[in-house]
Amino acid sequence: MTFIEKLEARWEQTNSLLCVGLDPTLKRIPAHLQEHSEPIYQFCRAIVDATHDLVCAYKPQIAYFAGLTAEDQLQKTIDYIRYNYPHIPVILDSKRGDIGSTAEMYAAEAFDRYQAHAVTVNPYMGRDSAQPFLDRADKGTILLCRTSNPGAGDLQDLDVGGLPLYEKLAGMITNEWNTNNNCSLVVGATWPEQMARLREITGDMPFLVPGVGAQGGDVKALVEAGQRRDGKGLMINSSRGVIYAGNGYDFMDKAREVAIETRDLINQYRR
Amino acid sequence: MTFIEKLEARWEQTNSLLCVGLDPTLKRIPAHLQEHSEPIYQFCRAIVDATHDLVCAYKPQIAYFAGLTAEDQLQKTIDYIRYNYPHIPVILDSKRGDIGSTAEMYAAEAFDRYQAHAVTVNPYMGRDSAQPFLDRADKGTILLCRTSNPGAGDLQDLDVGGLPLYEKLAGMITNEWNTNNNCSLVVGATWPEQMARLREITGDMPFLVPGVGAQGGDVKALVEAGQRRDGKGLMINSSRGVIYAGNGYDFMDKAREVAIETRDLINQYRR
Repeated sequence: MTFIEKLEARWEQTNSLLCVGLDPTLKRIPAHLQEHSEPIYQFCRAIVDATHDLVCAYKPQIAYFAGLTAEDQLQKTIDYIRYNYPHIPVILDSKRGDIGSTAEMYAAEAFDRYQAHAVTVNPYMGRDSAQPFLDRADKGTILLCRTSNPGAGDLQDLDVGGLPLYEKLAGMITNEWNTNNNCSLVVGATWPEQMARLREITGDMPFLVPGVGAQGGDVKALVEAGQRRDGKGLMINSSRGVIYAGNGYDFMDKAREVAIETRDLINQYRR
Repeated sequence: MTFIEKLEARWEQTNSLLCVGLDPTLKRIPAHLQEHSEPIYQFCRAIVDATHDLVCAYKPQIAYFAGLTAEDQLQKTIDYIRYNYPHIPVILDSKRGDIGSTAEMYAAEAFDRYQAHAVTVNPYMGRDSAQPFLDRADKGTILLCRTSNPGAGDLQDLDVGGLPLYEKLAGMITNEWNTNNNCSLVVGATWPEQMARLREITGDMPFLVPGVGAQGGDVKALVEAGQRRDGKGLMINSSRGVIYAGNGYDFMDKAREVAIETRDLINQYRR
């Protein structure tokens, strides 16, 4: 089963477009986990147990593990999801991008080492830099297109022949890079107008949508702008809003409550 | 001493613009090292010992370590250089790029965990994504501008208001992002015309130049196009050409020979 098939099945089975981002920082996880020998793994595992039936995907962000010399805890987190909840796709958020043999090593990192189902990739170096990821037909390549941060427009909005760069890129990905039908785009929740244009350009391509919750994206606007005709097509990511909903002994219950609220809020605006 | 000061001093002391890239792959390192418990560290250490007086910098590429679950060997490689050859700047080639707290974790990965002096960064997400790196005033932020791969132009050459995107970006970095005077650019050796324009735009900013050796960049053309008025300003990277010059027991001698040849070839065209 490919990443896209797994994702489509998951949308169908759970009726949820919520993706939970696993961005664990030692400062913010509950005090009673801090003393554990593998605190961020224990935290992620608990969040997964608390939310597994509510999500279409999990998205661990590698920087939070790498910054703490904790790649082993990232591996255990992904293994835990894969073994216990095998229907849930795991997206490794690492935004890699390099050329030739180096890009092949990054693809090996994401897909062979960590066994992720999909990975985020930065397209600035061009199609050949994405090719080692695109060649993994059963895996997902989720390309940065229009990101959610305030400075996103510095490059992405520059006018190229009457189109903003991110639209031009979306057209290239749709028409040229997506020969294995395994591409998705990162489209920030903070930009619903841009998302509507990208939905027109890309047809049914899935979007990974960061920026709700802590980043403040408007759920109604983004769902109306980004959903496909079948009411699916979006992996709407919330990280901090869900995983840090509580920081006491009841943090799992709090995370679950916010995950339910977010899923239901999203569903309110779906076709 | 900042990264830029360290680099300028190194150019002065060694009279070398050669940067050696450490891209170790198990398949290509000498057979007698394969059985070692830390083969890629042993290989990198030997290459460093064989070339340390010939280089202005080393550039380990993180993907080659991460793809093999060998972050510990990367750490040992960087530590080895820092302790034994403290005047040599170490550039972590990881091409990171993300937002806010995630970018801070990537900066922590490069500068606090690995103790690199500089890191390569992908600018696609805009200035705020680079800011956590730029804020480390004593460290170097080396931004992808015009890369050496055949597909580099897919995005980087797009015309934005009469300029190619990479020139527009170089202007933004020079005039807006470089407030701590710690920026450098990645400019591929395979594009001397573009490099000449970038030298005009950026003044004395250092360029990291991949693409000589295995990638076939023309040394004469790139040195003439990219050097500053003082004949410095370039970190001309060769990875495979140097480190895989031999693969028998004499691999260190072979690497040294090619490093000397490359340094001297470069110097032939300097002011």
